[in-house]
Amino acid sequence: MVGIGPGSQIDMTPRARQAIEGAEVIVGYDTYLELIKELVSGKTIIGTGMMQEIDRCQAAVEQAMEGKQVAVISSGDPGIYGMAGLVLELVAKYPESVQPEVSVVPGISAVGAAASILGAPLMHDFAVISLSDLLTPWEVIQKRIEMAVAGDFVIAIYNPKSIRRTSQIETVREIALQHRGPETPVGIVHHASRTKEDMKISTLEQFTNEHIDMFSLVIIGNSQTYVADGKMVTPRGYRL
Amino acid sequence: MVGIGPGSQIDMTPRARQAIEGAEVIVGYDTYLELIKELVSGKTIIGTGMMQEIDRCQAAVEQAMEGKQVAVISSGDPGIYGMAGLVLELVAKYPESVQPEVSVVPGISAVGAAASILGAPLMHDFAVISLSDLLTPWEVIQKRIEMAVAGDFVIAIYNPKSIRRTSQIETVREIALQHRGPETPVGIVHHASRTKEDMKISTLEQFTNEHIDMFSLVIIGNSQTYVADGKMVTPRGYRL
Repeated sequence: MVGIGPGSQIDMTPRARQAIEGAEVIVGYDTYLELIKELVSGKTIIGTGMMQEIDRCQAAVEQAMEGKQVAVISSGDPGIYGMAGLVLELVAKYPESVQPEVSVVPGISAVGAAASILGAPLMHDFAVISLSDLLTPWEVIQKRIEMAVAGDFVIAIYNPKSIRRTSQIETVREIALQHRGPETPVGIVHHASRTKEDMKISTLEQFTNEHIDMFSLVIIGNSQTYVADGKMVTPRGYRL
Repeated sequence: MVGIGPGSQIDMTPRARQAIEGAEVIVGYDTYLELIKELVSGKTIIGTGMMQEIDRCQAAVEQAMEGKQVAVISSGDPGIYGMAGLVLELVAKYPESVQPEVSVVPGISAVGAAASILGAPLMHDFAVISLSDLLTPWEVIQKRIEMAVAGDFVIAIYNPKSIRRTSQIETVREIALQHRGPETPVGIVHHASRTKEDMKISTLEQFTNEHIDMFSLVIIGNSQTYVADGKMVTPRGYRL
């Protein structure tokens, strides 16, 4: 399982590059394969096509059990809402004697990339929450938001909104406003490290008026986060 | 501010390498500079010596204001308990007209590296907490632990223990045991991606009996996390 980072190859580690170059079979979402197309040309590709996530990872496991070197590509870090867990779950269904060897090559995560573009919002304790309710009941997600807000965590939100799912980010805003001031900085980053990269720093009061979609990463500051010279900073607590 | 990743240069991005190669002045903790010594030879080095963190970053800012290209090195990601925030805070003290341009180059974080070694423990919502009470009151840290436990977050712990500070990790264990079973997996990673790398998967009941020090990264599973074939996995929720 190989993390290619947020987009540009300049943010992909040599370990990830070597894993891809050494693989005979490349498995991944077409959009991500497009980001590394010259690295994968000539290899067997198991792309999106008609296959769902589970089927694609199952195909990867089967190829590996046939003795092939397989790289399953995730954008960002495969260990953070990526394919690492799913592949390990699928592998564990087989007897140990036939299981392929599996390793995870970490990548620059979407949240790490977004933070670097915004300034330094993650300098203190933070919580990472996905608003996608496809695999997680909304009640669980909402409880986590409530706890993260009550604990004054900086909160990084994956999958904040989709065409179908628009109300959850409004609920996050309402819960956060119960504990944090309306001027609390909120950063929104799109397409970190890709050609379409852009960022916006807004406030807890206003941020849901900004463009947010399934490619956005949203970071809500804690009670100490401030904006200076267009950068979002959560102070560590030094006396300066 | 440049993140060199957890240790080995194979986990350092080309963007980080270029930033270091392009810099005239390198600022950082001696231990980290040692990891990249052939990249920094011949450059002006502002290492640990007698200087504290704040003084070192202040020196970096002053060098940059003199027109020098300066790279401030953090291990892992400079945006996660690294030097990014401190440098931005120091820069913001100057009038905008004299401020140097600052950018953050993300690195593979310690938590991402540790997770990759343990398997896939961060596949669901997680909280990152430092137990260091040098800059943060312990009451704030304890509240965050309580909220993270109550929210069933996977919990990644930086700075779990030092020679002076040994009781906090025991308190974390006690709080977590109020909500999670004694068999909940807990992973401990030392020196990820360095020659001394090692990892251990224990349980919530037992993990504080393992060796834990200031170089350890501890990951406590959520209510769904399990161990299969020596890997720690937090399922995403797929029906397999």
